[in-house]
Amino acid sequence: MNLILLFDSDFVAEDLVKLRARRLDHIRNVHRAKPGDTLTVGLADGRIGSGEVLQLDGDSLSLRVALDRDPPPPLPLTLVLALPRPKVLNRVIASATALGVKKLFLINAWRVEKSYWSTPRLSPDNLRLQSILGLEQARDTTLPSIELRRLFRPFVENELPSIAAGTRALVAHPKSETEAPRAITDPVTLVIGPEGGFIEAEIASLNRAGFASISLGPRILRVETAVAALLARLY
Amino acid sequence: MNLILLFDSDFVAEDLVKLRARRLDHIRNVHRAKPGDTLTVGLADGRIGSGEVLQLDGDSLSLRVALDRDPPPPLPLTLVLALPRPKVLNRVIASATALGVKKLFLINAWRVEKSYWSTPRLSPDNLRLQSILGLEQARDTTLPSIELRRLFRPFVENELPSIAAGTRALVAHPKSETEAPRAITDPVTLVIGPEGGFIEAEIASLNRAGFASISLGPRILRVETAVAALLARLY
Repeated sequence: MNLILLFDSDFVAEDLVKLRARRLDHIRNVHRAKPGDTLTVGLADGRIGSGEVLQLDGDSLSLRVALDRDPPPPLPLTLVLALPRPKVLNRVIASATALGVKKLFLINAWRVEKSYWSTPRLSPDNLRLQSILGLEQARDTTLPSIELRRLFRPFVENELPSIAAGTRALVAHPKSETEAPRAITDPVTLVIGPEGGFIEAEIASLNRAGFASISLGPRILRVETAVAALLARLY
Repeated sequence: MNLILLFDSDFVAEDLVKLRARRLDHIRNVHRAKPGDTLTVGLADGRIGSGEVLQLDGDSLSLRVALDRDPPPPLPLTLVLALPRPKVLNRVIASATALGVKKLFLINAWRVEKSYWSTPRLSPDNLRLQSILGLEQARDTTLPSIELRRLFRPFVENELPSIAAGTRALVAHPKSETEAPRAITDPVTLVIGPEGGFIEAEIASLNRAGFASISLGPRILRVETAVAALLARLY
């Protein structure tokens, strides 16, 4: 937690917040903060600054906060990700958020196992918590939007073209001969497939929807590694 | 497992291997292979090719193999990593290996908790297994060397300068104003700190040893995300 993310409901006065539960535990047990210490804080969807610990006990923590700078700029990229298996979902959400993704779609694909869609990790509460963990890691404050699309074809044919309008539309496909572009400044819509990849019919649908296949080379990466590698390479 | 990694000891004849245990289970339960199917295989530290399933039962699997192409080129990079906490160690090893790292040092640092050094995950057998998982993921065959260094200063002062000789020597430091270089072709020695970062005295030691501080921007990334992001950006 490199930044304590605050919400309007935490404020008990204009510059005073009171924290409990997860954030209190973390600040006590990991930061080992004491009254007088200063922590980096940020207001959800707002500015970043510092919080001075006024009081801290087993039950709650009071901080006097001053917010004086903007969060890091968002990545101008919409990420469309085949739903990863539950075991890696949390890490992928937190890591995409830490990298600055603000718009994420989790979609179905042939090689996404049906059971993945019934994991409790897809609850709005958990997706929000994982996003918060990513923001706290990266010292950002802007929450991403995360949407679920359980039908591949209607999404790709009817919705994706307008999502991608005005952006560079790319699909990561290990078999592509085209190298992923580097250090671009345009906005991008990036589609990443499931473990095992998209099937050829899915790649063909995406190509028809205007998505160019790109690859990072002959190495096949796990989804979490591929997300970080592609985003770092594009921007 | 996008490639089945084979070892000399698996061969029962010149083009015939017999597999049991982990690889058999994976091929049966995940690939759901049957006699006649062809799998991608590779010989450890050797070439890649295909393996035809001849026979498969609960006890063993026979493959006829033909090795006809080279593995992907290694990354010309030595990675020096502050020992991550045990929970992420396996993933970091597998992911660095998947990205093509062939030389890895796990070192101590002020913010590496002492207890991390006693995890059973640092056993040679486990480090080797995680490397194998990374190779199988990325379709590579060349095993990395992984060395442990429990004393920061003697390593940085006495050993690191010769490891880094003839390479671009870089240390990832979120506070640096210098952006990580992109798409370089020189060999690199890259040092990455622990969660929470190197302390200033460690950065100063590394700078004295010839390492230039570089950063990926204001976002602080978890070690596993930072490894993938930095390697993808450098090459």
